[in-house]
Amino acid sequence: MIVLGIDTSLRSTGYGVVESAGSALAALDYGNIPNGRDTPVPECLGRIYRKVSALVEQWKPDAISAEKVIYGKNANTMLVLGEARGAVLTAAAMAGLPVAEYEPRRVKMSVCGRGLAEKIQVQRMVKTLLKLGETPQNDAADALALAICHIWNRNLWYNNSRL
Amino acid sequence: MIVLGIDTSLRSTGYGVVESAGSALAALDYGNIPNGRDTPVPECLGRIYRKVSALVEQWKPDAISAEKVIYGKNANTMLVLGEARGAVLTAAAMAGLPVAEYEPRRVKMSVCGRGLAEKIQVQRMVKTLLKLGETPQNDAADALALAICHIWNRNLWYNNSRL
Repeated sequence: MIVLGIDTSLRSTGYGVVESAGSALAALDYGNIPNGRDTPVPECLGRIYRKVSALVEQWKPDAISAEKVIYGKNANTMLVLGEARGAVLTAAAMAGLPVAEYEPRRVKMSVCGRGLAEKIQVQRMVKTLLKLGETPQNDAADALALAICHIWNRNLWYNNSRL
Repeated sequence: MIVLGIDTSLRSTGYGVVESAGSALAALDYGNIPNGRDTPVPECLGRIYRKVSALVEQWKPDAISAEKVIYGKNANTMLVLGEARGAVLTAAAMAGLPVAEYEPRRVKMSVCGRGLAEKIQVQRMVKTLLKLGETPQNDAADALALAICHIWNRNLWYNNSRL
């Protein structure tokens, strides 16, 4: 099974492609999609959409795993996050891929064993679990963690799927 | 000049294609993109993206005119609106089309002469201005009004463009 994890944000969307074979995990690709502070929103969204579509084309994942949004941030933040998610979810829909969503707490619990783990702990655990030669950058680590979380929770998830 | 007006929402995005030649205006196409209440978000976004892309392909507009979001709604509403906008703006970016945004007040002022005009007045003015045989449905009328607003304000707008 191959899962594409996406940690969505307008200025730096992280991505991570993880393959599982039995209990073994391997990172096929990871990184982030940078957008400059002054880049107009439509251009940022076009870049996110193209990169996610290219990753799907290249790695043919079985699903996308994304962060479930926790409300309570301010309205402007939610609008911008929504726009970035719109680009990611549109790419998923155009490719006919299911999207699983997990709360940040759930992802940390899966990967680190603690729902309140810090960013650096997620980075280290992802490095260890995937036997990486380097500690992945923050957004990429979160995306890899989302992919791992879905691989480990997918049976549960498919029973609750809204798709 | 041809402008595609889009009144974005997840469940019913209105669209209107208006052509101007000198002071004459003509509606080439209008309607809405319905999404059922229980349709999963990615599927809704895919439908919005495909329809906007098809309209761009068919009518080859010079620009998209969209509603500028006024903040202050609740965070959940903003997230969902953002996601729908993400699909529209991604379609614009993939087609290389500029996006102009106008506040609702400005659109009503342009089309009705009053920033606080009611929905039905917008529908009637759009019908009159475009010499339509019927009163367009609400979302479609708002989209047509956005297209007209951009045609009448484009010189001003291009000077302030962020694109």
